[in-house]
Amino acid sequence: MVDVATLVEQAREGRPRAVARLITLVENAAPELREVMAALMPYTGQAYTVGLTGSPGVGKSTSTSALVSAYRRLGKRVGVLAVDPSSPFSGGALLGDRVRMQDHATDPEVFIRSMATRGHLGGLSWAAPQALRVLDGAGCDVILVETVGVGQSEVEIAAQADTTVVLLAPGMGDGIQAAKAGILEIGDLFVVNKADRDGADATARELNHMLGLGEARQPGDWRPPIVKTVAARGEGVDEVVEALEKHRAWLAETGELAARRRRRAAEEVEAITLAALRARIGDLRGDRHLHALAERVAVGELDPYAAADQLIAELTG
Amino acid sequence: MVDVATLVEQAREGRPRAVARLITLVENAAPELREVMAALMPYTGQAYTVGLTGSPGVGKSTSTSALVSAYRRLGKRVGVLAVDPSSPFSGGALLGDRVRMQDHATDPEVFIRSMATRGHLGGLSWAAPQALRVLDGAGCDVILVETVGVGQSEVEIAAQADTTVVLLAPGMGDGIQAAKAGILEIGDLFVVNKADRDGADATARELNHMLGLGEARQPGDWRPPIVKTVAARGEGVDEVVEALEKHRAWLAETGELAARRRRRAAEEVEAITLAALRARIGDLRGDRHLHALAERVAVGELDPYAAADQLIAELTG
Repeated sequence: MVDVATLVEQAREGRPRAVARLITLVENAAPELREVMAALMPYTGQAYTVGLTGSPGVGKSTSTSALVSAYRRLGKRVGVLAVDPSSPFSGGALLGDRVRMQDHATDPEVFIRSMATRGHLGGLSWAAPQALRVLDGAGCDVILVETVGVGQSEVEIAAQADTTVVLLAPGMGDGIQAAKAGILEIGDLFVVNKADRDGADATARELNHMLGLGEARQPGDWRPPIVKTVAARGEGVDEVVEALEKHRAWLAETGELAARRRRRAAEEVEAITLAALRARIGDLRGDRHLHALAERVAVGELDPYAAADQLIAELTG
Repeated sequence: MVDVATLVEQAREGRPRAVARLITLVENAAPELREVMAALMPYTGQAYTVGLTGSPGVGKSTSTSALVSAYRRLGKRVGVLAVDPSSPFSGGALLGDRVRMQDHATDPEVFIRSMATRGHLGGLSWAAPQALRVLDGAGCDVILVETVGVGQSEVEIAAQADTTVVLLAPGMGDGIQAAKAGILEIGDLFVVNKADRDGADATARELNHMLGLGEARQPGDWRPPIVKTVAARGEGVDEVVEALEKHRAWLAETGELAARRRRRAAEEVEAITLAALRARIGDLRGDRHLHALAERVAVGELDPYAAADQLIAELTG
């Protein structure tokens, strides 16, 4: 039995174990989540969330760690959420790179958690916002959300943040790859990491060119800056923080911050609604019935829409 | 206005343009799909579907093209579906590698289509089965489903096939990466491509070792074979076809073929049901209401579960 009120109280006091346990509840889609979220709500809305995405090898973990250091120098309480949606089967994130975060492991003002989001339909839509809410409620000023890999799920998670940072590196994160992954559209800020390597200028130029190819911007629109860094040596990281703070100010001034958070909340509410309806489909008809309908579809006796109609009629009738 | 009956009739006669148009309807989630699927149902269930997945650079396109050639030598009609779920924003698949398929472009017994599956929730669960149904109805004996990238969505699509082939290459598709992507569990057959390169034997050994680490198999269980190929020169491709045919025979004998198709149909029916309910959420309350609820969640006035309750009560009340 989880004592939610005590856990939430301890998380608000900044106790790492309580924060970790609450995020585990999110990870496990625990039934207590409803109570947890209700208890956390009044203490949320303060944290600035930054999503980081990019191909494996661009230095996401190193960049995240460098950003944690930079924000700690500014006296901020920092949360790091490493989301791994690419492990639907293992039930646990393999985060070998997490070792880079150990610089911050003993800092009581830094919360680091990895979260494996299983293959559940819609799970990604609510899990990340809820984990962010836990870190927000725990008093984090800044939350960095780092995703593993560059699939659609990762892009969606990174895009749920207040500000989305897309990382590239010379010679691998070229523009075509970025365009393929659909990440040009979601980047509020582009970082060319490993800028001491050959090709960094070319990558930045190509990116600049591709960003310019989009539709004409209106006055007041945000033009995503491109910052070059060598995160492993901390070079350029203060410039990234500066660019982030500029974007944050722009978000607040234009009302875009509220709009983004409303969109994130809408996606979360819709995902919870659908998950509840999905559970109800299972409850009402039982897996046996869906099984029987699926059998008829599989052998060509029934089309899938007619099968869906039968489920819906029972559910809403 | 789409004349569904005529299109389906033409697709059944093997006319490529009709097949292409039907898959475009799937891609666009067109309202005519219900009619299309109902019309196709009686003519489906014959095609053997093979999913191919693996990291970028392992030679998926080359392997797919080589498999098409091998099956054509056996006189089979072949369908190729290249699914790109990593482009939620672009609205079109960037398939530069498709050029390798041009060897087969003029063969009337080969249907090749790429399909971009947008970022719609649940879209992946129904889009791939429906595109397969179109190719099945068009009389394909074998359908190869190639996914772009290795995110969770790609793994799920590849796993929806009758047989799932996981491709690796020496030095890049090592076991740890495969385990990370959750693809060890879904592979019915492993192909180590580019086997003329250094490290091919080591990759095969490592893979063999990791596959052996799983739970003990029962007699009659399928033990995934590992085949080495140099797809660009066609080497080992006949062995892949042989292994596929063995797996197909095993699927049929054990009843697993019917079970997999039933699971695929169940996922499709559930996805259609949820999509319909989701549309109904929009219809009933209007975006304005969800917007208003989301606004209250975003500012911390209402928890997301209470907001979901309001939507569900209206929907099912």
